[in-house]
Amino acid sequence: MQSTKPPSGTRDFLPEDIRRREYVIGVVRSVYERYGFEPLETPAFENIETLLGKYGEEGNKLIFKILKRGEHESSGEADLALRYDLTVPLARVVAQYQNELPKFFKRYQIQPVWRADRPAKGRFREFFQCDIDSIGSTSPVVESEILGAVAEILTTLGFQDFILRLNHRQVLTALLQLSGVPSGLHSDALVALDKLDKIGRDGVHRELVGRGVDDEAADRCLTRFTRASAGDPLDQLAQMIRDVDPSESGKASVHELLAIATLAKGTPAYGRIRIDPSLARGLSYYTGAIMEISVPDLAGSLGGGGRYDNLVGMFLGRDVPACGFSLGLERIIVVMTERGMFPSHVASSNADAMVTIWNDSSRADALALAGDLRRGGLRVDVYPETDKLGKQFKYASSRNVPFVTICGDDEKANGTVSVKDMRSGEQQNMPRADVAAFIARTLRTS
Amino acid sequence: MQSTKPPSGTRDFLPEDIRRREYVIGVVRSVYERYGFEPLETPAFENIETLLGKYGEEGNKLIFKILKRGEHESSGEADLALRYDLTVPLARVVAQYQNELPKFFKRYQIQPVWRADRPAKGRFREFFQCDIDSIGSTSPVVESEILGAVAEILTTLGFQDFILRLNHRQVLTALLQLSGVPSGLHSDALVALDKLDKIGRDGVHRELVGRGVDDEAADRCLTRFTRASAGDPLDQLAQMIRDVDPSESGKASVHELLAIATLAKGTPAYGRIRIDPSLARGLSYYTGAIMEISVPDLAGSLGGGGRYDNLVGMFLGRDVPACGFSLGLERIIVVMTERGMFPSHVASSNADAMVTIWNDSSRADALALAGDLRRGGLRVDVYPETDKLGKQFKYASSRNVPFVTICGDDEKANGTVSVKDMRSGEQQNMPRADVAAFIARTLRTS
Repeated sequence: MQSTKPPSGTRDFLPEDIRRREYVIGVVRSVYERYGFEPLETPAFENIETLLGKYGEEGNKLIFKILKRGEHESSGEADLALRYDLTVPLARVVAQYQNELPKFFKRYQIQPVWRADRPAKGRFREFFQCDIDSIGSTSPVVESEILGAVAEILTTLGFQDFILRLNHRQVLTALLQLSGVPSGLHSDALVALDKLDKIGRDGVHRELVGRGVDDEAADRCLTRFTRASAGDPLDQLAQMIRDVDPSESGKASVHELLAIATLAKGTPAYGRIRIDPSLARGLSYYTGAIMEISVPDLAGSLGGGGRYDNLVGMFLGRDVPACGFSLGLERIIVVMTERGMFPSHVASSNADAMVTIWNDSSRADALALAGDLRRGGLRVDVYPETDKLGKQFKYASSRNVPFVTICGDDEKANGTVSVKDMRSGEQQNMPRADVAAFIARTLRTS
Repeated sequence: MQSTKPPSGTRDFLPEDIRRREYVIGVVRSVYERYGFEPLETPAFENIETLLGKYGEEGNKLIFKILKRGEHESSGEADLALRYDLTVPLARVVAQYQNELPKFFKRYQIQPVWRADRPAKGRFREFFQCDIDSIGSTSPVVESEILGAVAEILTTLGFQDFILRLNHRQVLTALLQLSGVPSGLHSDALVALDKLDKIGRDGVHRELVGRGVDDEAADRCLTRFTRASAGDPLDQLAQMIRDVDPSESGKASVHELLAIATLAKGTPAYGRIRIDPSLARGLSYYTGAIMEISVPDLAGSLGGGGRYDNLVGMFLGRDVPACGFSLGLERIIVVMTERGMFPSHVASSNADAMVTIWNDSSRADALALAGDLRRGGLRVDVYPETDKLGKQFKYASSRNVPFVTICGDDEKANGTVSVKDMRSGEQQNMPRADVAAFIARTLRTS
C-alpha cells in the first residue's frame, strides 16, 4: 500500500481549514476591492526562463522545474517552472498587456506559490500569497494607500498590536556609505544587520567585522541603524535626516518617507507606522520605500513589500514604476489560530439541517423536502440510507447538525414535518411549508 | 527581450475574466454548500506514484512531472507530479484521514488541474474542475442528490436546454455480452460506440468490425445502443430492462437507474434526465451509474461523473463506495460567453468612485475622503498624481468610473465635496458627510 500523506512540505485542507482560510481571504479581497484594486490570476507555471535569474542565486535553486513533455521527458530537460512569487508574473503581465491595462494598474492576486525549500515548522513548499501592486506612478500616494489597505485588513481581522515598519533602500545605501562601509560590502553588511533581532548588537558587530567591515565603520553602522524605533515617525524621520546628511539621495529618500508617513495619517495605517533604519528586506529588486508588518509574538513578518521601479523593465524594455505588498496567508492564520481570533461561526462546516429517511418509499419525498429547505437558503444534508432513525439521529449529532427533520407516515398524511432541535432536544410538529422559515429564524436568534 | 506570453496552453486572467469566473464559481459553491457538501483542497502536486497508473496508458503520458529538488536535479529524476484530476487526490485524502472524516463524506473541490495535452481551441494545459463527490454510501439517493445539485447550478446560471444523460457501466457490459461481443473486445467496442455522435451509425459499424467484432454482433450492438434517447426516462428504462434480459446484473443495474430517476423527480434534475445507452465515459474507474451534461451547441460535455466503488480501495486497502461529478468551468464560461448569458454587472471591474487630487497639500485630505467612502462600502480609487483636473477626469472616464469627487480650496473651506456623475455629466456640491450615501444610493437606483 502506498503512502497517503500529501507530499513533504504541502498540506491537505479539510473543511474546517478551508473555512478559516476563506474567512481571511474574504476579508483581504473585500478590502483590496474597496481600495480600487482589481483581481488578476496567472498560470501555476511559467516558461522557465521567465523565472530564472529573478530571485538571486539562492532563489534559482528553490524553483520547482517541470520536465518537458512527450518524448523529451527522458532527457531530463525542464522547460516550465512553478510560480515562485506573484511579482515576477505580474511584471510579465504588465509587459504583455501594456495596451489593454490602465495607465495606473492596481491589481490584487491571491494564489499559491511553490518553493523547493527544506520543510520546517511554518515553512511550506506550497503556500499562498495575497499581493497588491500598484503600477505606473511614483507618487507617495501609492505607498500610503497600500499601507492603508494592509492596516485595514489586519484591523478587520482583529489584530490590535501590529506595527508597519518602514524604511528606504536609498537610505540604507546612504547610511552604509556614511558609516564608511565600501560599496562592495553593502550586501554583506545588510545580511548581517538583518540579524539584529536574532543575534543582538554584539553579534552583528562581530559578523560585520567578520565580513570585512572595519571596526569603526561597524560601530558607526550600528549607531545609525539602531536608533530607537519607537516614537512618532515624523520625529524619527527628523533624526534620520540628520543621519543621512550630507547625502543628497539619502535626504531625498527621507523626504519620500516623510511624504508617505504624512499621507498615511488619513488612513487606517495612522499610528501604526514605525521608521526602522535596520529594515532591509531580502529581495534584490526593491529600489525605494520598503515596508514590513510585525506582531510581537511572531519572529518573522506577516507580510512585506516595497517599491521596485526597474523589474517591469526586465520584460518591457523600459522602466515602469511599481510598488507592492505581499501578505502571508498561512502566517496570518497561524497567529490568528494561536490567539483564538477566529469568530466561532467560521469553522462550523456542518449543515443547518439534516433530512432523515423514514423508509425506502419515502426517499423521493425526503429529497423534495430537502429541496424546499435549500430554496429557503439553508444548507441541508440528506441521510442517504434507510437506517434506523436512532442511527440517523446519532449521525446528525456527531456532525453537530442543529436541526433534524422527520417525516413519517403520520406527518406525511397530515402534510406536516417534525423538526427536532438537536441542541435543546425539543421536537415540534409543523406544516411542511413552515419548516424552512422556522429553522432559519431559530438559527438567527440562537 | 524574452517572451512575455503565458506558457503554451495556459492563460492569464485579467480582471474582467476573473469577474466572470468568480461569478460562476460563486454559484457553484453556493449550490454545493446548500446540498451539504463541504470544501476540500489538496496540494497542486502529488508524489508521482500517487498519480501514475490511475488514468490509463494515455493519462500517464499527460501527467506533468516535476524534477526532484537539489542535487538530484541534474539526474532528470522526477518525484512529484502536477494534479491531473480531483478524484485521485480525494481517494488519497479519504484513506489518509479515515478517522477524522464523517462516515458519509460529501466534499466539493474547485481547483485547477494540469494536463500535458497538445493545446487546441478550448483545450488547455491548465484548467479548473469543480467536483462534488459523496463517499460512503451505495444508496441511489447519492446519485439523485448529485444530479439535483448539478441541475440547480446550471438552472441558476441560466441554462434552459441542458440534458443530463444517464447510463450504467454494468448495463453497458450486459448489452455488449448479449450482443455477442467477447469480453476481451468490450473496451474496444466502447471506444467505437463513443464516436456515435461524430461518425454516425455506419461509421461505428465499420469501426466495430475493424476492431474485431463480427458483423452480426455489431448490428445487434447498434440496435441496442441507439434506442431513441428522448421520451420519459421511466419508459426508456422499461425498454432497457427488456434489452438486458436475461442478464441478472444488467437487470439489477437498470433497477438502480430506475431508483435514481424516480428519486430525482423531487429535485431540480426533474425533466432533464435522458437515459442514453450509448453513454460510455472515458475513465476506467467507474463501476456503476455514469452521467454527463449535454447542451445542443457544444460537441463535448459541460461535465460528467459517475459511481466508482473501487478507487478509494487502491489507497485504503478496503473498498469504500463513492460517486462524483465534475463540472468543467472553462466550458461553462465558453458557452455562457457565446450565448451572452452573463449579467451585465458581472464584468464591471471598475471602481464606484474616483477621488481627484487638487494639489500636493490636499493629498492627505483626498486619502481621508477615500477612507470615508470606503467605510461606506464603496470601491474607491484615488488618482495618484497631482495632474491637471482635466487629465484626471479623462482617466476616470476611460476607466468607466461612474462618480468623481473634487475637493478644491472652496470645498475644503466649506466642508463640502463636489461630486460629478460621469454618466450624466451632472455635478453637485454637498456636505462631505453625505457623499458616500449619495453615491451608494444613486448607484443602487441607476
